[in-house]
Amino acid sequence: MRLSRYFLPVLKETPSEAQIVSHRLMLRAGMIKQASAGNYSWLPLGYKVLQNIERIVHEEQKRAGHIPILMPTLQSADLWRESGRYDAYGPEMLRMQDRHGRDMLYGPTNEEMVTDIFRAHVGSYKDLPLTLYHIQWKFRDEIRPRFGVMRGREFLMKDGYNFDLTKEDALHAYNRHLVSYLRTYERMGLQAIPMRADSGPIGGDDTHEFLVLAETGESEVFYDSEITDLKFGDRDIDYDSVEQCQGVLEEFTSRYARTDETHDEELFNQIPEERRRVARGIEVGQIFYFGTKYSEPMGATVTDREGNQVPVHMGSHGIGVSRLVGALIEANHDDKGIIWPEGVTPFHCGIVNVKQGDAEADAACEDLYKALSAAGLEPLYDDREDRAGAKFATMDLIGLPWRITVGPRGLKNGVVEVTSRRTGESEELAPEAAVARIREIYGV
Amino acid sequence: MRLSRYFLPVLKETPSEAQIVSHRLMLRAGMIKQASAGNYSWLPLGYKVLQNIERIVHEEQKRAGHIPILMPTLQSADLWRESGRYDAYGPEMLRMQDRHGRDMLYGPTNEEMVTDIFRAHVGSYKDLPLTLYHIQWKFRDEIRPRFGVMRGREFLMKDGYNFDLTKEDALHAYNRHLVSYLRTYERMGLQAIPMRADSGPIGGDDTHEFLVLAETGESEVFYDSEITDLKFGDRDIDYDSVEQCQGVLEEFTSRYARTDETHDEELFNQIPEERRRVARGIEVGQIFYFGTKYSEPMGATVTDREGNQVPVHMGSHGIGVSRLVGALIEANHDDKGIIWPEGVTPFHCGIVNVKQGDAEADAACEDLYKALSAAGLEPLYDDREDRAGAKFATMDLIGLPWRITVGPRGLKNGVVEVTSRRTGESEELAPEAAVARIREIYGV
Repeated sequence: MRLSRYFLPVLKETPSEAQIVSHRLMLRAGMIKQASAGNYSWLPLGYKVLQNIERIVHEEQKRAGHIPILMPTLQSADLWRESGRYDAYGPEMLRMQDRHGRDMLYGPTNEEMVTDIFRAHVGSYKDLPLTLYHIQWKFRDEIRPRFGVMRGREFLMKDGYNFDLTKEDALHAYNRHLVSYLRTYERMGLQAIPMRADSGPIGGDDTHEFLVLAETGESEVFYDSEITDLKFGDRDIDYDSVEQCQGVLEEFTSRYARTDETHDEELFNQIPEERRRVARGIEVGQIFYFGTKYSEPMGATVTDREGNQVPVHMGSHGIGVSRLVGALIEANHDDKGIIWPEGVTPFHCGIVNVKQGDAEADAACEDLYKALSAAGLEPLYDDREDRAGAKFATMDLIGLPWRITVGPRGLKNGVVEVTSRRTGESEELAPEAAVARIREIYGV
Repeated sequence: MRLSRYFLPVLKETPSEAQIVSHRLMLRAGMIKQASAGNYSWLPLGYKVLQNIERIVHEEQKRAGHIPILMPTLQSADLWRESGRYDAYGPEMLRMQDRHGRDMLYGPTNEEMVTDIFRAHVGSYKDLPLTLYHIQWKFRDEIRPRFGVMRGREFLMKDGYNFDLTKEDALHAYNRHLVSYLRTYERMGLQAIPMRADSGPIGGDDTHEFLVLAETGESEVFYDSEITDLKFGDRDIDYDSVEQCQGVLEEFTSRYARTDETHDEELFNQIPEERRRVARGIEVGQIFYFGTKYSEPMGATVTDREGNQVPVHMGSHGIGVSRLVGALIEANHDDKGIIWPEGVTPFHCGIVNVKQGDAEADAACEDLYKALSAAGLEPLYDDREDRAGAKFATMDLIGLPWRITVGPRGLKNGVVEVTSRRTGESEELAPEAAVARIREIYGV
């Protein structure tokens, strides 16, 4: 993309309404604009990051054998009356009536609706196991929306639902989700720690939240420092293997890690003192096993091997897609701006022409732009008539992990400069070598 | 995808509530499930087609230089009060209040919100031209929703908005949209004819609707038969070229083609009688030029070359993404089921194992499955224990354009069968040649 043809409305001043760094940087970098309290429009740069996160979530869900669907944002109140949650849910549920006076609501979650799909179409244990998921906008009428997309009202979430014949099978689905979540977050360059949590309005026995450590996190967390040394890495997991998934769960959850909701001081104090950590975390996902809590009242049953009608065992599993954009920034920034991990960056690299209008510099930039694009990469080329300093500041603010700087002086020596946003280190390379370097980084 | 691990709830019986063929076939093929009146969940097969259409629309929008953003589904009533449309819009607008009693609405369109983004961030003619678009769910509270996704209440739409300094520039944006729409529909295997239309609640002077001819269309259309011979084809269009875009517009709109709203009997009768056609059509898109209708009341101005503040000239341009799924089926089906055009098919081909459990047939199917997947194609392999006839009926119903049939008898002669869903014609080929044939069809 050529910046002269893009829409990147960066702000010079720090917006006063933003209390946390991710909100400030998203506004300054022209990623979002508030549409109304807690509701945001995603401007081009922000939307690209959101789409990258969405793509990774889809890919990892499908890898785990989960099947994508899409349920509507608005739901009929009738389904929620069946489960008993229509009256139980508080004022965070946005309710409305259509022109015929029928009660509707903007879905904050989809247990009822997906159970209704299941009961209409599945009747036999032979069709199990089944996990359906979608990535769809939800609404939660926060009394005091704040922190930008981290605690907005309309938010994008992946929610998945497993249907299994037995509790044992459903616990495998739980474990499988835990494994695939670890992999999902790592691909985004995030360490998200599974912590024993409280089940809240979803209900159920087993639940883990995934937390990203960050000073601005809304939850206080308590953990054994050994847990931050764990890496999921490039393991070749068979998601059908009960043993493999169980093994990963044990590895990642056997050490103490809890949010303040479930914190147990006595257990915590059994960790050697030098490994005890108290910090803050941002919740970016949660998994639940809740058995027959919805299938029983809603009649979601299957015939088992012996011909009996039994309610299915279920769980639900969420990833906060729009919130992750904020969490990523909280975990990856410095005082100049954002530092995107390569896995989610909106553009693979920036090209800064320090002397726009200089024939040689312009031509070199064009060549780099074309070579990178031909390799399947998306560079952002700052081709505007502007001071080099202003161009550097913009690139630093929007956080592209790599920058190629092109100027007449370097070109005289046959080189351009490749700079890492994270370390600030630069390397002088011939233009072709610069392209090869960026391709190598992204493995294309 | 292996059918034994997929969720494809096909129905044996024709649902009685469905009045038109696309609605019937979408229910029977397990593509959608009604969630409430006029609101649908997209089941796996339907969601795949929806995503394919969305992808094509994104690709063609970006090719035309338009920039993707994403605005929220819910909007504040305040913006609509500024434009004067809050009171003017009828009961099709779904209105609600949040917990603080603030008036909100589920956006039926986004002229106000995008104008608000523009006025907040753009101040100079130097930042023009600019076209922002998004693909987002909308809501229209139809008094009597029907025809499935063709006239649902929650629907997915691409809406784009151009901002230009002059009327002339805005008319180029209008033409550019017309060209890119022609290309978009053709890639989906659809002929959509631009017809002079009425501007309705969007307002404005110039507007064309794009209509797909189909017996079940809601509009009566009148046209010169020469228009159906026009093909956009594989033209290499420069979207920046005023002349080229104007040329395409003239080519595709100079012949008579109007909906009943703008039909002019006198003009129509000037066409030679043998070329006069009266038919029915489904609207799948519309483009508008409306000048300063929103920019003036909302203060969306820029500084022009002379330093004057002038309101920008705008237009808006929509493609009915979810409705296209229905329109595609209306235009592509027979009495056995759907016939997907290759551009949007949910799976590139089906593999039918006529004797599941036969070692040789199973192995041949596995090999085909792996070879096609390795080529980047997505086959749907019916690996269930079921009669061959039932498997064929399912493949015909869900409409994959190509089927490979594998059975012990053919394998004895070293062949499998490749069948076209559209023509019914079959070819016997060695398995490797069958893979090559499918790859050739999709150009991979």
